[in-house]
Amino acid sequence: MGRWDPNARERLERAALELFAEQGFAATTVPQITERAGLTTRTFFRYFSDKREVLFSGEEGMRSQFTAIIEGAPPELSGLDLVQYALEQGAAAIFEPRFADLRSWRAVVASDEGLRERALRKQELSTETAKTALRERGLDEQTATVLAGLASVLLQSAVTAWVEQPVVEKSLTAYIRESVEQLRSLVA
Amino acid sequence: MGRWDPNARERLERAALELFAEQGFAATTVPQITERAGLTTRTFFRYFSDKREVLFSGEEGMRSQFTAIIEGAPPELSGLDLVQYALEQGAAAIFEPRFADLRSWRAVVASDEGLRERALRKQELSTETAKTALRERGLDEQTATVLAGLASVLLQSAVTAWVEQPVVEKSLTAYIRESVEQLRSLVA
Repeated sequence: MGRWDPNARERLERAALELFAEQGFAATTVPQITERAGLTTRTFFRYFSDKREVLFSGEEGMRSQFTAIIEGAPPELSGLDLVQYALEQGAAAIFEPRFADLRSWRAVVASDEGLRERALRKQELSTETAKTALRERGLDEQTATVLAGLASVLLQSAVTAWVEQPVVEKSLTAYIRESVEQLRSLVA
Repeated sequence: MGRWDPNARERLERAALELFAEQGFAATTVPQITERAGLTTRTFFRYFSDKREVLFSGEEGMRSQFTAIIEGAPPELSGLDLVQYALEQGAAAIFEPRFADLRSWRAVVASDEGLRERALRKQELSTETAKTALRERGLDEQTATVLAGLASVLLQSAVTAWVEQPVVEKSLTAYIRESVEQLRSLVA
C-alpha cells in the first residue's frame, strides 16, 4: 500500500490540510499526516521534503496552467483585456473548483509568519511565469512586468473578497470582473 | 565607545551592507560587521536581533514616511493621480538619495532565498500600510486594496528599471512617470 497508490500525493495533501486546520501547522507532525492518509512516512518523503512543502506542491501545476492560458489567448487581446481573459479562465479552471480547500489553505498560511513569506515568494514566481508568457507574445519587458503585476494584484484582491464572503453568493469570476471594472475607473 | 555613539545604527548598517556585498551574506558574521564598524557585538545586538535584520531595519521608517505622504496629499487627488503623487514624493524623499545603497541592498537580497522571502513580506507590510492610509482618506476597502497594490507594482517596476540602468541617465521620478503613463495606455 502507498507505494503504488496513484492518489498518494492528493491523499497526503488533503490529510495535511485537514490537520493543519484542526490543530495548527506547528503542532502537526509528518507521522500524524501519514497516519491520517493511511500511508507511510517513507511515502510522504517521496513526494515532499517537509511538511511545509505539502502546502505549496500544487503551485508549479498552477503556473503551467496559467502559461497555457496566456499562450492560448486570442491573439487580438492585449493590455487589460488580456489580463481579464487570463484571470477569468484561471478562475474557472483552477480556483472555482477548490473553494473550500483554498479557504483552509489561506487560513493556515496566514497563521504562520514563515508560511506567509513562502507564499509570497511562490506568488512572485507565478508573476514571473506570467511575465515570461507575456514576453513570448511579443510584449516588451516593461509592459510585461506591469501587466503581470497588475494581474497579480487583481487576482489577489478578487480571491480575498471571494473566500472572505460570509455567505457564498458570488463567483470568483464576478469578483474578477468587478476588480477589472474598478481598475478601469480608477485609472480613467 | 559604541554605547553613546549616536550613529551606531547607521555605521552597523553600512558595514554590514559592505561586507554582504563583498563576501556574501552567508559568509559574513556579526563579529566581522562590528569590527568593520568599530563597535562591539553587544552594541550590535542592542539594535538588531540577527544579521538578517540589519537589512530590514529601515523599513518601518519608510512606511511611516509613505503614510505621512498619503495623509498630506492634496484632498482633490484620487485614483491613479493620488498613487502617482505619493510615488513621486516617495521617490524624492526616500529612494533617490540612496541609489548606491539600494543597488547593493537589492543585489544582496537577490542572492539569498530566505532574504527574498523576507523582503517580499516587508513589501506586503508596506502595501498594507499604504492601504490603511488610503482607507483613512475615506476610500472603501476594495478601492484601497487595488490602489495600494497598483502603487506597489508601479514602484517595484520603476525601481527595478532605475537601479538596473547600465549608465545612470534617468531619475526614479522619470521611471515612475513612464510606468504610470504605460499603465494608463494599457488600461485605456
